Amino acid sequence: MSSTAGQVIKCRAAVAWEAGKPLVIEEVEVAPPQTNEVRIKILFNALCHSDVYFWEAKGQTPLFPRILGHEAGGVVESVGEGVTELKPGDHVLPCFTGECGDCRHCHSEESNLCETLRFNTDRGVMLNDGKTRFSKNGQPIYHFLGTSTFSEYTVVHVGCAAKINPEAPLDKVCVLSCGVSTGMGATLNVAKPEKGQSVAVFGLGTVGLAACEGARMAGAGRIIGVDLNPGRFNEAKKFGVTDFVNPKDHDKPVQEVIAEMTDGGVDRAVECTGSFKAMIQAFECVHDGWGVAVLVGVPGNDDAFTTHPMNFLNERTLKGTAFGNYKPRTDLPTQVEKYMKKELEVEKFITHSVPFSEINKAFDYLLKGQSIRCIIRMEA
Amino acid sequence: MSSTAGQVIKCRAAVAWEAGKPLVIEEVEVAPPQTNEVRIKILFNALCHSDVYFWEAKGQTPLFPRILGHEAGGVVESVGEGVTELKPGDHVLPCFTGECGDCRHCHSEESNLCETLRFNTDRGVMLNDGKTRFSKNGQPIYHFLGTSTFSEYTVVHVGCAAKINPEAPLDKVCVLSCGVSTGMGATLNVAKPEKGQSVAVFGLGTVGLAACEGARMAGAGRIIGVDLNPGRFNEAKKFGVTDFVNPKDHDKPVQEVIAEMTDGGVDRAVECTGSFKAMIQAFECVHDGWGVAVLVGVPGNDDAFTTHPMNFLNERTLKGTAFGNYKPRTDLPTQVEKYMKKELEVEKFITHSVPFSEINKAFDYLLKGQSIRCIIRMEA
Repeated sequence: MSSTAGQVIKCRAAVAWEAGKPLVIEEVEVAPPQTNEVRIKILFNALCHSDVYFWEAKGQTPLFPRILGHEAGGVVESVGEGVTELKPGDHVLPCFTGECGDCRHCHSEESNLCETLRFNTDRGVMLNDGKTRFSKNGQPIYHFLGTSTFSEYTVVHVGCAAKINPEAPLDKVCVLSCGVSTGMGATLNVAKPEKGQSVAVFGLGTVGLAACEGARMAGAGRIIGVDLNPGRFNEAKKFGVTDFVNPKDHDKPVQEVIAEMTDGGVDRAVECTGSFKAMIQAFECVHDGWGVAVLVGVPGNDDAFTTHPMNFLNERTLKGTAFGNYKPRTDLPTQVEKYMKKELEVEKFITHSVPFSEINKAFDYLLKGQSIRCIIRMEA
Repeated sequence: MSSTAGQVIKCRAAVAWEAGKPLVIEEVEVAPPQTNEVRIKILFNALCHSDVYFWEAKGQTPLFPRILGHEAGGVVESVGEGVTELKPGDHVLPCFTGECGDCRHCHSEESNLCETLRFNTDRGVMLNDGKTRFSKNGQPIYHFLGTSTFSEYTVVHVGCAAKINPEAPLDKVCVLSCGVSTGMGATLNVAKPEKGQSVAVFGLGTVGLAACEGARMAGAGRIIGVDLNPGRFNEAKKFGVTDFVNPKDHDKPVQEVIAEMTDGGVDRAVECTGSFKAMIQAFECVHDGWGVAVLVGVPGNDDAFTTHPMNFLNERTLKGTAFGNYKPRTDLPTQVEKYMKKELEVEKFITHSVPFSEINKAFDYLLKGQSIRCIIRMEA
């Protein structure tokens, strides 16, 4: 056992005190893990758009003060009662959506939406006692997505930590714990293009580029990137994109543009923007008879998906996915192994790196569209 | 060759002269088959709802005079130039949607929407010359769905006739050429429930009952029939229905009723009414994580399918199908063989039988909801 086991740890954390205000590096207190919890020393973070959304809290339930962060890698410091799957020293990726291993979803081959540990953006406390493990001078600080990795130490449910190969470089594989897997899995696990097929990807942020990368890995013959920002195309080529469509360049609906480019429609489409209009376009641009569209981007509360039912009856399929249908504790270790065997690239997603003290710069890079993934080095 | 080959045949046909007016049995002239066409002596018809819709022509393009009928069985009388797959004497089921065998759809394992011979309800002429093969006193009479089987002889494209086992009783297997296969295939080929899973079927007409029958054949653990007519439940039990839900009996939306009955939703749903509201209900009543809903019923021109995109993102799937995804010429002969081996029942769909001269009675039975399938005996 480490000398800190069972003790409150004082460490640095980046606290979001208010919506949209720069995070403040504070000294916080991190309580020991309770039953079925583990405390993790976080070594690296990557910044994901979801952190930014809940920091901005526009149209989201505001919950402050809060420690954000959910794409990270670290080492188990200590474990709570009942934890047998992990021990101090294990290398883990914290997971924003968990896997209890015991519910109907965990038993289903198709679902990764664990009944107990499914991601919940509104909950700011631990399941065990409904309280936080973070505080500053006695004031509780809320959790985020059950991970709160913008802290040198965090506490997560044991079902939300995937044990990985300790040889894997955490500053690289940490990006697998959210965005990259979400996009890659949407293509590889859900859209499942066959070799030579065409795939359209809507939105060329990290998730979209990962969807393109999945299509490239599947041997897609043509990968059409759709984005309103023409600056994205050059970067996207590294992820296999062969054609670029900017809806602004066309008078007709983008689904018609794509249908004309592809003799009736693409074989697969993956929607990674969260815009309901793009969802409709992504669905309507797939070929009748066999086309499959997959929704990944998270919509607003008041959005509606609308289409003529004949678009379904002409034998199109529409599916949605969370976290690329990966079961986090089962599949992330395998993804890491693929990286170790060079069957999966993550380096090309990493464009920036900052020390923890400059975490707000990572927010700037993302908000300005300059970064794909920016690594935040906790020990720096 | 039969003595009638190459000759115009005069025979009886039931002509729809006007929308909604009783069919009139007339003596018509049936021209010989042209290139890639076959002329078929029809022995049995079954009446399908689509015949009634296009006869009523409410919200459909009216096209009269017309010979309706598309669920039938017969024997090839003669073949046109270039026809090698069929010869006089072959037993066939005419198909309202064809299979050229040569296009991208026919080559795809997933699609049955043949590019050349896909069903077209608005076309009233043959593809070869854009003209009709039927006339009365020189006046052309339009075709319907490329089959027009309410005639003692009809002409169809060779790609729209499935050659079947000559031992099969045509007065029974004729029902496989549309409604029964449509519903059964929707469940077996598209929804694909696993053994023990729950299936909800919306609409308990012939197609819906066939969808239930498909669920029963797949070993579904629970089959929930949804219909506004409580009289349907008793009949439906023969097709495996275990639970009946009448939306009129409940104050809350039927998708909530079904979710409560099934601990969160059914595993599969099949929509067979064509009502866009039922389509939304069918989709929203499937379980998150793995639920699949399949649309079969044909909507109106102005209908819209609308739902919140989160219903997809929670890992539900929505698909549509035409003719249960069966490829008519490839799969109907196999379906007939299954019937011959008693692996597939059709008798229970057949509730009535009338001679051709009383074809309008068959319309009455269907319109009053009294019949499932009424056989029309052409030689009687």
